Amino acid sequence: MVVTLLTDFGTRDEYVGVLKGVMLSINPQVVMVDLSHQLAPQDIVTAGFMLRSAYRYFPSGTVHLAIVDPGVGTDRWILAARCNHHLFLAPDNGLLPMVWDKSTPDSMVRVDNSALFRHPVSRTFHGRDIFAPVAAHLSNGMDLEDIGPAVTLSQIKGSEIKGARWHPSGELVGEIVRVDRFGNLITNIKMDQVGRLADGAPPPNFEIWVGDCCIQGLAQNYAEGSPQVPLALAGSHNCLEIALRGGSAAKFLGVGQGAKVNLKTRK
Amino acid sequence: MVVTLLTDFGTRDEYVGVLKGVMLSINPQVVMVDLSHQLAPQDIVTAGFMLRSAYRYFPSGTVHLAIVDPGVGTDRWILAARCNHHLFLAPDNGLLPMVWDKSTPDSMVRVDNSALFRHPVSRTFHGRDIFAPVAAHLSNGMDLEDIGPAVTLSQIKGSEIKGARWHPSGELVGEIVRVDRFGNLITNIKMDQVGRLADGAPPPNFEIWVGDCCIQGLAQNYAEGSPQVPLALAGSHNCLEIALRGGSAAKFLGVGQGAKVNLKTRK
Amino acid sequence: MVVTLLTDFGTRDEYVGVLKGVMLSINPQVVMVDLSHQLAPQDIVTAGFMLRSAYRYFPSGTVHLAIVDPGVGTDRWILAARCNHHLFLAPDNGLLPMVWDKSTPDSMVRVDNSALFRHPVSRTFHGRDIFAPVAAHLSNGMDLEDIGPAVTLSQIKGSEIKGARWHPSGELVGEIVRVDRFGNLITNIKMDQVGRLADGAPPPNFEIWVGDCCIQGLAQNYAEGSPQVPLALAGSHNCLEIALRGGSAAKFLGVGQGAKVNLKTRK
Repeated sequence: MVVTLLTDFGTRDEYVGVLKGVMLSINPQVVMVDLSHQLAPQDIVTAGFMLRSAYRYFPSGTVHLAIVDPGVGTDRWILAARCNHHLFLAPDNGLLPMVWDKSTPDSMVRVDNSALFRHPVSRTFHGRDIFAPVAAHLSNGMDLEDIGPAVTLSQIKGSEIKGARWHPSGELVGEIVRVDRFGNLITNIKMDQVGRLADGAPPPNFEIWVGDCCIQGLAQNYAEGSPQVPLALAGSHNCLEIALRGGSAAKFLGVGQGAKVNLKTRK
Repeated sequence: MVVTLLTDFGTRDEYVGVLKGVMLSINPQVVMVDLSHQLAPQDIVTAGFMLRSAYRYFPSGTVHLAIVDPGVGTDRWILAARCNHHLFLAPDNGLLPMVWDKSTPDSMVRVDNSALFRHPVSRTFHGRDIFAPVAAHLSNGMDLEDIGPAVTLSQIKGSEIKGARWHPSGELVGEIVRVDRFGNLITNIKMDQVGRLADGAPPPNFEIWVGDCCIQGLAQNYAEGSPQVPLALAGSHNCLEIALRGGSAAKFLGVGQGAKVNLKTRK
Repeated sequence: MVVTLLTDFGTRDEYVGVLKGVMLSINPQVVMVDLSHQLAPQDIVTAGFMLRSAYRYFPSGTVHLAIVDPGVGTDRWILAARCNHHLFLAPDNGLLPMVWDKSTPDSMVRVDNSALFRHPVSRTFHGRDIFAPVAAHLSNGMDLEDIGPAVTLSQIKGSEIKGARWHPSGELVGEIVRVDRFGNLITNIKMDQVGRLADGAPPPNFEIWVGDCCIQGLAQNYAEGSPQVPLALAGSHNCLEIALRGGSAAKFLGVGQGAKVNLKTRK
């Protein structure tokens, strides 16, 4: 069974390897896949966005372990849940509701069965002593009810990923939620929101404002346009993305995470 | 069966993990090995050089997936081929001919069978929707002929890796094709070319010019010489390599990819 | 069977992938786990510290391959050993005695059976031609005695990890041995040494001096204290660690590897 790993541990230290050693000690058959360990320390929002983008591409029953945990060693909860035929394990810090978006978990528990933990439990490395062994037991088919008592969505921390919103003026106002390695700017504007603005007419019948630049309509792929003119297109996350042919839109436009992106009908 | 992955996706984003999720969904037994994801965006030449250096060390039948793809979403071809008992999958951008060097593929097709793809196919992430599923099917033993129509070498883009050349003066003129993590300078001068220049005589009977430095003959290993004098030796790629004991030859000499390297008989 | 990999090869080049290809060619069932490839070139001390921290979390019988090898291509020895139910393979450069700390290997040999190597053996890439094939054979269950002649601890290079020491004044003097990704400062002061200083009394009855900062007693976890006041706590290595809530203690204090850390009873 597959376990994915998403942490802010980096790959310079041995921490991720130690998680894997602990899991292999419990489930020698486990297949482990790194999603990323390069999250900025404590960046829960990006972690949520990445796991939301990625988890559906794994086989049903995959265990997704996400450790971005500013509260390690405190009494914050750790959650294990089943949602959309996948299993999730993460601290109770708003990460999982972001991942699930509008879905409701079929089952969710607070991790509580200390018989599953490594002892003594370090106060600074719950990844090794709690998360890894519990993930390994989940990958072995252990039931959620054997891990802890059921909890409901109303008992856990809510999501902080904001969606794009409609202004009374009819403008759609979103923001850049991630900058990827290529300098592509990924927004929180969903393509069905863009479609609603375009209202069935062929593009470009609207314009996109980001930084001090105005982009007309949508391109089909990265290779369109020139290296001097940013383009907008449907990204692989099914959200609006701003890119630059053969270059970094982030550098070219001088904008980053949190920058506003406005769409309006062209006059 | 083994699949190697070589991309310019980086490891900060979740893109590589998503490829692996897609492959595991199709072939749960697949063993995936990362060659590198740190290629400079669109650096096809380095990708070709790296895969050429690496592929023979994997078991026969390994599938080598190489995605450096400035043309993603355009109508450029995607190629799948068998060569020297290995399988290859990459965009038609000159990468594979570099890898194969003087070998001819036993069989080569244009990837065309859309029944194998994930749908809808994103225009910006063919890695997820085309390359990963096709690689997984190849690792499952699917025949090339079930993936698309045969194409010939004359129909695809040619290689851009230049070999070192003989000047009429008798000098051998090559260049630095890569700088590795240690600052070692890897050239395109093959050791049999060096042997021809040396003409059987024991080294140093020739000199190597790189930057404003002259190196006499060949060293046996990195630990020879002093930290102030660069040395030349037979690198693990069986090409001439310039190194510095305990340091970076690239920094010391102030040269990088593309710099000329000249060999001539010593007077 | 599991093989862990710890090298200074980086992940930009294809070198680590090549090691894995060689191992899979010999043992197709091998499970390979990266500990780190981001060691500073030739940083044997950090390698020793990391592997010492990590190896016990893997299943018994795991093969730990550590290649930090300034002497590649010279006649330095390569060692294979069994210690505490784990197997180790590394150059004879002091790394393994650091890992084993006060343990004595049950069995140790000098790698010598060239029938196991890839030929021709490159003088610059023993990782590919010696370490990887020998590690794969070990993971296949080959006996140490089939790999080379027995050697004793007195015949190999000793460790360079220094422990914290007691001053005649009663102060405990240690140093920072690593800075991790989060900027946490990991010292060589073991928690049982701290306990001896505290002498059973509840903290804070002692103070910790690092840089120009004085820390009173111990915190329980990273979330204690303020973002302006560094704290000390028992790290996951069971050594004293200096950290900063929500930030980097290394940056805040302006200290790094090698900096002194003093503990004394509070007056």
